[in-house]
Amino acid sequence: MSLIVQKFGGTSVANADRMREVADHVKRTRDHGDDVVLVVSAMGKETDELLRLARDVSNTRPAREMDMLITGGERKSIALMCMALHDMGVPADSFTGSQAGFLTDTNHQNAKILTISPQRIHETLSAGRVAVVAGSQGVSTDHNITFLGRGGSDTTAVALAHGLDADACELYTDVSGVFTTDPRVCGAARKIPNISFDELLEMTAVGCPKPAMRSVEVARSYDVPLHVRSAFTWEPGTWVSKEEPNMEKPIISAVVPDTSQSKVTVYGVPDKPGIAASLFRPLADQDVNVDMIVQNTSEQGVTDISFTVPSEQLEIGKEITSELANAIGAQGIDTDSTVGRVSVVGAGMASNPGVAATIFETLSNESINIGMISTSAIRVSCVVAREDVERATVALHQAFELDKG
Amino acid sequence: MSLIVQKFGGTSVANADRMREVADHVKRTRDHGDDVVLVVSAMGKETDELLRLARDVSNTRPAREMDMLITGGERKSIALMCMALHDMGVPADSFTGSQAGFLTDTNHQNAKILTISPQRIHETLSAGRVAVVAGSQGVSTDHNITFLGRGGSDTTAVALAHGLDADACELYTDVSGVFTTDPRVCGAARKIPNISFDELLEMTAVGCPKPAMRSVEVARSYDVPLHVRSAFTWEPGTWVSKEEPNMEKPIISAVVPDTSQSKVTVYGVPDKPGIAASLFRPLADQDVNVDMIVQNTSEQGVTDISFTVPSEQLEIGKEITSELANAIGAQGIDTDSTVGRVSVVGAGMASNPGVAATIFETLSNESINIGMISTSAIRVSCVVAREDVERATVALHQAFELDKG
Repeated sequence: MSLIVQKFGGTSVANADRMREVADHVKRTRDHGDDVVLVVSAMGKETDELLRLARDVSNTRPAREMDMLITGGERKSIALMCMALHDMGVPADSFTGSQAGFLTDTNHQNAKILTISPQRIHETLSAGRVAVVAGSQGVSTDHNITFLGRGGSDTTAVALAHGLDADACELYTDVSGVFTTDPRVCGAARKIPNISFDELLEMTAVGCPKPAMRSVEVARSYDVPLHVRSAFTWEPGTWVSKEEPNMEKPIISAVVPDTSQSKVTVYGVPDKPGIAASLFRPLADQDVNVDMIVQNTSEQGVTDISFTVPSEQLEIGKEITSELANAIGAQGIDTDSTVGRVSVVGAGMASNPGVAATIFETLSNESINIGMISTSAIRVSCVVAREDVERATVALHQAFELDKG
Repeated sequence: MSLIVQKFGGTSVANADRMREVADHVKRTRDHGDDVVLVVSAMGKETDELLRLARDVSNTRPAREMDMLITGGERKSIALMCMALHDMGVPADSFTGSQAGFLTDTNHQNAKILTISPQRIHETLSAGRVAVVAGSQGVSTDHNITFLGRGGSDTTAVALAHGLDADACELYTDVSGVFTTDPRVCGAARKIPNISFDELLEMTAVGCPKPAMRSVEVARSYDVPLHVRSAFTWEPGTWVSKEEPNMEKPIISAVVPDTSQSKVTVYGVPDKPGIAASLFRPLADQDVNVDMIVQNTSEQGVTDISFTVPSEQLEIGKEITSELANAIGAQGIDTDSTVGRVSVVGAGMASNPGVAATIFETLSNESINIGMISTSAIRVSCVVAREDVERATVALHQAFELDKG
């Protein structure tokens, strides 16, 4: 008998019928002999609806009150899920983040988990019942209700799996696992049966939508085995775990397309210590989510710095950067909202220097121009024109023979 | 400087505009130099909507989970109210029932308050801020979230006014106070400036819709001065307090019409000790809300027992009573869903034996037949045909000169 933490997102609990499907899924898992802790998000568009209400009511939205409001969405889900479970003869108890023992810092809207003390979950499991826990929430060290942020339910599930020493954490999504590339972009995409935490982290960092990056970080830190799978089928999904030596392992795991970013370039930046910090600290303070950063080699004491930001943050990013460029004596800035990115990820790449060369040759053969390059030990990302992202993805997926399994 | 607890119901916080009106009201109260603790209900039809969702999801609705679900409504209101207050420059903190220190028994769906420890409310007030408290909720002795029942926000406000030793508890409603009768039924109705707890209790017991009876009981027990007033005007409403000797006080305070009840009669009940208990205990166990009970004088060892129940509970009440009638050897039962009730309430009535006579004469002059009579020290209620309730109300209001002030 295993203990399994199962997490279902908002789409999976969007209405009464979906909730009963999840309840049925939990019942089958129990019938199979396993204990279940269920983590659920807010129903469908509930969180968006609460945000809209808040905007209607007030221009002044203290973070503490936003958390009080938003966490109500998950709370509604847990109560209804328990009712659906009882209806199927599965005894269940609901728990808010606070009741489940999630102690967080006081950083409202984006709180970090400090400790987990899941005594009440243990009691419910010992009584042969299912524990249904509200995702993305906890109680702060000063006794206020906190929200872990959008997508925080994955983190709740992983942290709870660690806190309970569960055998696995199953993250149910609307896709059936992690793929070699986006199936909507490239029909030859294949599901990856096993992947390492590091690889999945690099993939989520460059635009792979699921699971939430933060939850993979927690899973990696505490070595919690993840199973990313479909909420709609029983077929195995993708197992995520520590990398194990495997001679047969392919060099490259996936090609990740991303059309959500825009590019900002600061020209003629004086090449002095501290310049990068004076540029990126103010952006971070305004919560601008800077992603790729590339600084060219300095020529005659000046350099160019380019970075990408989510397209919806381009305006604010541009505004802040313009002021800073002026203050640090740069020549000017430029932005480009027609860029995209394609990334190649694979743990085998570190010891295979030919990978980058293959990437550049492949794109060159397709007459695709590369605007920025950034690399890590297990990833190479290229910024290209947004209209070229799909073609680049298909070509790279084929070049690394990902369609051949 | 006074400390005032202000309670606003669901209609007063039904949407963003209404919430801003309440915030404006609180701001004016503070500008006047008073400290405010605000108690709010769930928005508009929110509670009904949550109940509908629960029915959609499940036929099995454990009380603990219903409380987890329903209390989310008030929680949404407090967060949004705080945002609206901040927008007007009024600093405010929201508190769930648990955070406000409401400890209750474990009777989910209809929990009773055991103690109040409002330390956090005191801290917020000391910091010059408004405390916004979720109505009708608390945390039980076994650490679960509890709901005080429909209409429980009035009770929250009164209990909190007691716990904080507030100077007054203002209950804002959609009417401007307590009236000598229902203004919709009788145009000559007048607002009562002062009334005793006992009189208001008798009035709410026989159908006066506001405030909730239970809150008046708590106010009476702890001598919390209540001010029932309109959410839409600043005019004084009705003050409710302990009765003070007052020679000028009129004998009769109000005539209360009620068309929400139906009548059940059990015929030929053996007149033995314990019969009433064996009849009404099972009804109470099924939460059938029995109101007036009249037992006729026994003749030849058998008696008739009549009682009223809310019309929406008539079917279940009839079912239970039929079984019981059989079990206790009664001759049979009868029900009547075309009845109504008119009640005359006044603290001066106890020492004025002519009151009942005047009531019966007045109804007789109107050719209105009386089906049941029940009296207390300060109330006389008559069950009449539902179609006669309005005429009876107008006639009695005039007979006791309530229109003359």
